[in-house]
Amino acid sequence: MNHYAAPLRDMRFVLEEQQRHRALELPGFEDVSGELVEAVLEEAARLAGDVWAPLNAVGDREGATRHADGSVTTADGFASAYQAYVDGGWNGIGVEEALGGQNLPEVVASAAQEMFQSANMALGLCPMLTAGAIEALSQHGSEALKTAYLPGLVEGRFTGTMNLTEPQAGSDLSQVRTRAVPDGEHYRLSGQKIYITWGEHDVAENIVHLVLARTPDAPEGNRGISLFVVPKFLLNDDGTPGERNDVICASLEHKVGIHGSPTCTLSFGENGGAVGYLVGEPGRGLNHMFTMMNAARHKVGVQGIGVAERACQHALAYARERTQGRRTSAQGSGECAISEHFDVRRMLLSMRARTDALRALALYCAAEMDHARHAASTSEREAAQARVDVLIPVVKAFATDQAVAIASTGIQVHGGMGYIEETGAAQLWRDARIAPIYEGTNGIQALDLAGRKLQRDGGHALATLLDELDDTARALDAHPQLAGWGAALAAGGEDARAAMHRVLEQGQDATRGADAVQAFATPFLSLLGHVLCAWQMGDAALAAQAAIDAGDSDPFYVQKRTSADFVINQWLPEGLAQRAVIDAGMQCLDDFDPHLG
Amino acid sequence: MNHYAAPLRDMRFVLEEQQRHRALELPGFEDVSGELVEAVLEEAARLAGDVWAPLNAVGDREGATRHADGSVTTADGFASAYQAYVDGGWNGIGVEEALGGQNLPEVVASAAQEMFQSANMALGLCPMLTAGAIEALSQHGSEALKTAYLPGLVEGRFTGTMNLTEPQAGSDLSQVRTRAVPDGEHYRLSGQKIYITWGEHDVAENIVHLVLARTPDAPEGNRGISLFVVPKFLLNDDGTPGERNDVICASLEHKVGIHGSPTCTLSFGENGGAVGYLVGEPGRGLNHMFTMMNAARHKVGVQGIGVAERACQHALAYARERTQGRRTSAQGSGECAISEHFDVRRMLLSMRARTDALRALALYCAAEMDHARHAASTSEREAAQARVDVLIPVVKAFATDQAVAIASTGIQVHGGMGYIEETGAAQLWRDARIAPIYEGTNGIQALDLAGRKLQRDGGHALATLLDELDDTARALDAHPQLAGWGAALAAGGEDARAAMHRVLEQGQDATRGADAVQAFATPFLSLLGHVLCAWQMGDAALAAQAAIDAGDSDPFYVQKRTSADFVINQWLPEGLAQRAVIDAGMQCLDDFDPHLG
Repeated sequence: MNHYAAPLRDMRFVLEEQQRHRALELPGFEDVSGELVEAVLEEAARLAGDVWAPLNAVGDREGATRHADGSVTTADGFASAYQAYVDGGWNGIGVEEALGGQNLPEVVASAAQEMFQSANMALGLCPMLTAGAIEALSQHGSEALKTAYLPGLVEGRFTGTMNLTEPQAGSDLSQVRTRAVPDGEHYRLSGQKIYITWGEHDVAENIVHLVLARTPDAPEGNRGISLFVVPKFLLNDDGTPGERNDVICASLEHKVGIHGSPTCTLSFGENGGAVGYLVGEPGRGLNHMFTMMNAARHKVGVQGIGVAERACQHALAYARERTQGRRTSAQGSGECAISEHFDVRRMLLSMRARTDALRALALYCAAEMDHARHAASTSEREAAQARVDVLIPVVKAFATDQAVAIASTGIQVHGGMGYIEETGAAQLWRDARIAPIYEGTNGIQALDLAGRKLQRDGGHALATLLDELDDTARALDAHPQLAGWGAALAAGGEDARAAMHRVLEQGQDATRGADAVQAFATPFLSLLGHVLCAWQMGDAALAAQAAIDAGDSDPFYVQKRTSADFVINQWLPEGLAQRAVIDAGMQCLDDFDPHLG
Repeated sequence: MNHYAAPLRDMRFVLEEQQRHRALELPGFEDVSGELVEAVLEEAARLAGDVWAPLNAVGDREGATRHADGSVTTADGFASAYQAYVDGGWNGIGVEEALGGQNLPEVVASAAQEMFQSANMALGLCPMLTAGAIEALSQHGSEALKTAYLPGLVEGRFTGTMNLTEPQAGSDLSQVRTRAVPDGEHYRLSGQKIYITWGEHDVAENIVHLVLARTPDAPEGNRGISLFVVPKFLLNDDGTPGERNDVICASLEHKVGIHGSPTCTLSFGENGGAVGYLVGEPGRGLNHMFTMMNAARHKVGVQGIGVAERACQHALAYARERTQGRRTSAQGSGECAISEHFDVRRMLLSMRARTDALRALALYCAAEMDHARHAASTSEREAAQARVDVLIPVVKAFATDQAVAIASTGIQVHGGMGYIEETGAAQLWRDARIAPIYEGTNGIQALDLAGRKLQRDGGHALATLLDELDDTARALDAHPQLAGWGAALAAGGEDARAAMHRVLEQGQDATRGADAVQAFATPFLSLLGHVLCAWQMGDAALAAQAAIDAGDSDPFYVQKRTSADFVINQWLPEGLAQRAVIDAGMQCLDDFDPHLG
């Protein structure tokens, strides 16, 4: 029942028919052909479906176990599944060749990543964190650090972690207290970090902790924070792991989901100080971390889409099998699968259509990430990066909020069975629930969008996206089969523009600007998420309709057009309601007294 | 941290200032004064807060344990907490005096019930099921059955269960296969029932199972199903529990939440047949069950509100304590509680306002239930019952869907802490998730509303509610402080009317009527839920404003008006989007092929 088959056809549709492989035309990807991409995705699908997916329930049941010496054993099968991933070269799929990676575009890496996250989100977190460490080190590390640590990380012999949070420093990292004291050519770190994903485990030979800490004479606040590499095992001269460093897993968290992922409290320096090496410039730790945040946040969005996809497949499989009630339609009477009931069909289509839309948006963003890195001209690269900056918080927050909702609908499709753990639908819902929280809560994403990203360019980058949306709307309206969809989409674009201008205008207010941005941030992100998803599905409808018009009788295209119909005509209206919310203002938030309850 | 204090002030506001205790004026409640109600609620608050609430986490952690002999031990403290409830007479709070109850109106019983569900939803299920058994037996049982079983049930020495579901018979009970063979003056039952809440336990001396089963010569389908009483222990001549009956707990379910509530698979007749007694007429089992369904569904809605209230309190307590980030407003700078951040305020107010609104709606419905039973004239009783019939599916489905959403927001307010089980926020979310499923899934509620309830009176009862809404809207617009709210509310009423007419019209279509009702049912229920909640909060705003205008400086009234502001101006728009969804039609649901995935 709880099978997972990677949605290869859907992914190829986005890459080949919606995007026409535009990323492959970029400088640097001359050796990447469409055939290669296809082969890579098929291989990823095999590993994800055959090896990783069956371990998802095992990880949930067994969790990870911490022993008295601070070591951690992961669930049965996790170590070998990780090894199979490393052996397949997947750990370096999106990493450039010079660093030992596969040098595939981000669109391809994202599609593959979605599969691994669908198959096993808890295990998928391990390489996700490693990717962040690779990015931070390759961008900011000294040559010595790169030489020492990157090969192990890229190959997957080492895994990475991000050590940011402390009990008093969550969304506000300026409160970090972990200390790093100079000691010859390195530093000695001491302090406690919490919520460290894959902070300790038994699936690789070493762990490279990236740690935010404060040097003795550093100023207070953000500018006093530096970034350090703290390996679990110090390296021998030949690069192999040697002496154990002074960092230990003090405890594991008892979480709602992703039980297979060990979430650690790490204690640094209980025996004299953990050896650490400065990454980049002193006092620039937060900046260095934030350069890798964009990629990490995109990956969390993709993780949400992975869980949503699996929830779709799971619910559809159940609804096709489960008979209950009678057919009510003109198509006949007698027992029928619940997928025939129109209320259940609404649930199933809403899951499928939203997942399709989120995937299209995340892969659009991934293609822009490729352009931001590889486009021929500086102006193209900058324009792409500006779009990426706007899109990332939407992909992260909107996809993960929707993932929880989609997984919840998946439970509902199962009826009473959905509430029984053995069914597996509930695990997806519990697992998904972390994604709106970590890597910057969705509230933080909304503030990043409505505050930093929007205010700094006056909405320019977003406006270019909405202009493209208008092009799509015009193309839809020009097609007789899609009449009316363009108007609906264009109206959505208008609402997004109006809301953007209001948020920009309110944000300029000298006395209340900061409050206003906070007050409108979440409704604005939700509105924009719906509108951008509708745009991408308008684009999908055009591609599908083109195939149908060309005489292709593959029912896939009708199904994709149906997804687009739902997104534009039945889901978008819910998002547009947020314009009225923004227009209603913030008086009630002012009036509300949280001390009264 | 995880404290619960019953919202007495809010409940009294609804009963005294919104409803002006109209239930107390009904024939039969002459002895019930406002002072008595106040004393009763205070007493319930004490028991719920001091005794039941601290056991909520214990029940989640320990669950219930089944032993080899089929007996079940509940979590530590549950038995004595249940006994305290019984000793306080709470089990019979809403039961008429003639049956040994307290004869308090449903509005009062509902308010008290909300407290117990807030305090401990898993334990609260036990008396909830008993109430259903009392209602079924008192309405349909023979005098002999009533004499034998009602006293134990009303006092709480016996608990009740509802044995409906079988593996092949969930939403479609016509598929029930459990057999009941006549054997002298009773029957012998054999078969398997699943998902039986509190089907076996150690908190009371006997369990009265109400069981749907099929007699040997009964026709297929609904008309072949009869209702039986099957006690766990057969009664001795003196009414005390005697010989063990042939029904045993075969297993306990491993559920996502409500771990403290033993959900059993019950096996009947493994040793010759369980002795059962026919309730009411043969072949009328489903009808008899459905007479108690209304009350049970209302109770599940109230359960959702109970969990939502506790999630509010929990999130507010955390947000007031947790400091993070700096104040961004003109009110100053420096560290601040996260409840000062406007994005967090939005979450907190949305939780509080929705909970306020759902409570007001559920208690309005309860008052109508009182009128349906006690009003002086038949026409008044019938009119009230017609409203109750429309309101029940909304209260059940809308309140429980919202409860899950509110509990999820509660997790989000906690940030990373929210995902750690020890915090307690996640338990509320996991517990709440059953409520949209059991007692008729929320999809079934929507069909009951849009199909049966709406179609049979052509929307008449709903129209009378919407007329009252218009009165409220006019009163709002007549008040200078509430200008504009009336127009927003009236627009909501118009959308509800328009959607109702469309659903009615589509439902009449000879070939596609049944599909159309199914297709529009859930969006229609959601739309109506938002509109009716907004109406009730419009009413609340008028009552609060009246107090303010009269010079009352209690900040409670400003806070209540703020809740209403949010509901009418920021939450209602989301619901109204469902009108566009309904207007978009069902073509995409027709086109969707669940076999393609």
